[in-house]
Amino acid sequence: MKRIITGIKPTGTPHVGNYLGAIKPALKLAAEEEHQSMYFIADLHALNSIHNRSKLKSLTYEVAAAWLALGLDPERSLFYRQSDIKELPELHWILSSVTGKGLMNRAHAYKAQVEQNNREGRDRDDGVNMGLFNYPILMAADILLFNGSEVPVGKDNRQHLEMAKDIGESFNRLYGSTFDLPTPVFAEGSEIIPGLDGRKMSKSYGNTIPLFTEEKSLHKLVKRIVTDSLPPEAPKDREGSPLFTLFREFATPIETEQMAHAFQKGIGYGEIKEELFLVMNRVIAGPRVKYRHLLENTDEIDKCLKDGGSKVRKEAAEHMDRIRERVGL
Amino acid sequence: MKRIITGIKPTGTPHVGNYLGAIKPALKLAAEEEHQSMYFIADLHALNSIHNRSKLKSLTYEVAAAWLALGLDPERSLFYRQSDIKELPELHWILSSVTGKGLMNRAHAYKAQVEQNNREGRDRDDGVNMGLFNYPILMAADILLFNGSEVPVGKDNRQHLEMAKDIGESFNRLYGSTFDLPTPVFAEGSEIIPGLDGRKMSKSYGNTIPLFTEEKSLHKLVKRIVTDSLPPEAPKDREGSPLFTLFREFATPIETEQMAHAFQKGIGYGEIKEELFLVMNRVIAGPRVKYRHLLENTDEIDKCLKDGGSKVRKEAAEHMDRIRERVGL
Repeated sequence: MKRIITGIKPTGTPHVGNYLGAIKPALKLAAEEEHQSMYFIADLHALNSIHNRSKLKSLTYEVAAAWLALGLDPERSLFYRQSDIKELPELHWILSSVTGKGLMNRAHAYKAQVEQNNREGRDRDDGVNMGLFNYPILMAADILLFNGSEVPVGKDNRQHLEMAKDIGESFNRLYGSTFDLPTPVFAEGSEIIPGLDGRKMSKSYGNTIPLFTEEKSLHKLVKRIVTDSLPPEAPKDREGSPLFTLFREFATPIETEQMAHAFQKGIGYGEIKEELFLVMNRVIAGPRVKYRHLLENTDEIDKCLKDGGSKVRKEAAEHMDRIRERVGL
Repeated sequence: MKRIITGIKPTGTPHVGNYLGAIKPALKLAAEEEHQSMYFIADLHALNSIHNRSKLKSLTYEVAAAWLALGLDPERSLFYRQSDIKELPELHWILSSVTGKGLMNRAHAYKAQVEQNNREGRDRDDGVNMGLFNYPILMAADILLFNGSEVPVGKDNRQHLEMAKDIGESFNRLYGSTFDLPTPVFAEGSEIIPGLDGRKMSKSYGNTIPLFTEEKSLHKLVKRIVTDSLPPEAPKDREGSPLFTLFREFATPIETEQMAHAFQKGIGYGEIKEELFLVMNRVIAGPRVKYRHLLENTDEIDKCLKDGGSKVRKEAAEHMDRIRERVGL
């Protein structure tokens, strides 16, 4: 059975882009017989950007509730809070001592910040905290603590996975073979999910549709999605149409075919938006109820994450004993 | 009662310079009524330079045995292994996320390495591992986990203590007052202890006298200490004399006075060396037996460090609970 590890950063209220781009494909993978999935709420990573107690707590709950509401089965998958695995920061320190600083200097996330600082005439390390700089080492610990896993990667974090492999190899070279290195699994066809303004849906653009917003508010938001000003009867291009892209993600293949036909023939944007709202709400309505329930009963979330953590810690503790022995602690 | 924290890096077999420069003054401080001392074997820090399992293990035992043999009382002082306090790497991660990278860029130990690389035409971060770069943050965790301690500092690590204060202040500013900041205690009159060649006794100069070497070998080493070529009857300068400096450290005040008189009147170097050997061996002989005993019974050392760790962990765990609560974990 293959082991798949995915970290979920609780840095924002889940939106439609998160669902289609990350949650839905991950849950599909988790449902496959030959996989055991490990999903963890990456709250230690989130500390770098969220310096606010109640915000971190509520985002952790929102993200956990979203995954559970959307069908993550905690009996089949291991679902846990990163901060409950006390072996992780310990392994982070041990891996630090075999990680060259030069490697971290080349990490994309760090370099992006430096480039922005350079462009804006600030000190190169302005606003960079050591959590950001150390990020790839903790990510290596997240993965290497559990031997030989597959890690779904998008374009963004492919480099960080390579770094995890480099760090594992450094350790193995110095101390003898200890870590089975991870394998990247390239996340399938990550279509760009458009937001309200047609650009990629992203918290930083302020163009998101919150996944579990109330029905009325979802309706209003869908009506705000930008369109061109073609009249209803004009044939419309599906390519690059935010409405069509979103519709296809939520509709059945037959509905999608019918909508493609309507685009060709001519259909008013108002009508398309009504249809889009209906297919979206059909998918979201059930999970929305479950999501609300969980957020009103966060003890259920706590229990679920705690149980998941206990299952994971047994293996983590055993591996950590071997690692400590290897380095002479 | 004031709390004093000192980390002991297990990076070499204890020598006479370690004893006179660090161990003896620390044990004197520990014996004072108004203090409770915490001494820890800094094995997590040592990982940065020792990538060898059995070397780290044996140096840890040697250093622990030396302190115990020289009179550290584990009933009065808290004596523990850094790696047994699992809260430390966890706090290290949390503190990373409130520590600016700019602060670490300015750390002396890191800068020294960069300067050496620049002088020798290498990449500035050549050979720098992330454990070295993160060192001041783990040191901050060592101290801040235990509130309001006093930390004896020499010239070398004064900056790192200032950094621990800066990091504690950053945290307090972001999350509300959580850490009582440490106070530096300036280590008294740290006279430079001369080695066999007259330069400062240091492992890196290869001029050390191992503290617990056998009597015969101690005798031989003392005879090798450099002198000038003045004849026995010539008056000799005490100032800058390695023999006199070492003699004074081990002798009684009356013996020192007599030796000063002999220097003035004229005395042969051979005779001085015999006297020096006698006073040194008088101090070392008892502890040498105890040291040998402990190294042949490392389970006694393990038990002692484990007991110390258990006492410390209770407080560490309580404080860590408050810290987690503060950041929202």
